[in-house]
Amino acid sequence: MTDETLLQFRKSIDNLDACMVHLLAERFRLTKQVGEYKKKNQLPPADKSREGRQIERLRKLAEGAELDPDFAEKFIRFVIDEVIHHHEEIRDS
Amino acid sequence: MTDETLLQFRKSIDNLDACMVHLLAERFRLTKQVGEYKKKNQLPPADKSREGRQIERLRKLAEGAELDPDFAEKFIRFVIDEVIHHHEEIRDS
Repeated sequence: MTDETLLQFRKSIDNLDACMVHLLAERFRLTKQVGEYKKKNQLPPADKSREGRQIERLRKLAEGAELDPDFAEKFIRFVIDEVIHHHEEIRDS
Repeated sequence: MTDETLLQFRKSIDNLDACMVHLLAERFRLTKQVGEYKKKNQLPPADKSREGRQIERLRKLAEGAELDPDFAEKFIRFVIDEVIHHHEEIRDS
């Protein structure tokens, strides 16, 4: 493998990262609307049973894709924590 | 907005999460190969100048997509930290 090959790998990694940033942007567009709904209906920002189902589902998808399920769980917890923080801000606004 | 509408939002969120898990799986398939290359060529697991460029680029993409650039940076640092950890494991294997 040459440095040119390394450069090609990095270009592919950059493309995947751009995809993920745009998916995250769309995800937060949706969860912002969920936050407004929760505020309107006085629902709590966090929903532990929903979170448990999300984590279990993503762990299984990760296994199928040969991604470490523990990393998939860390990732979704990282995203959900940010969402809950946003919901709290909406609730208190 | 009804609970049926909330359910529809959650189905869309679940689809986006499935996309991201599969992109992360593909990203780690690529970085695993980069890790092997770095081991073979005795390159260090981390590359600070590359990381700086990745972060700046993703912050700009996030701005364009109306995603908080600080969150985009936290996200990519979270992923890169995991990659460096993998590269260290490959180096020491």
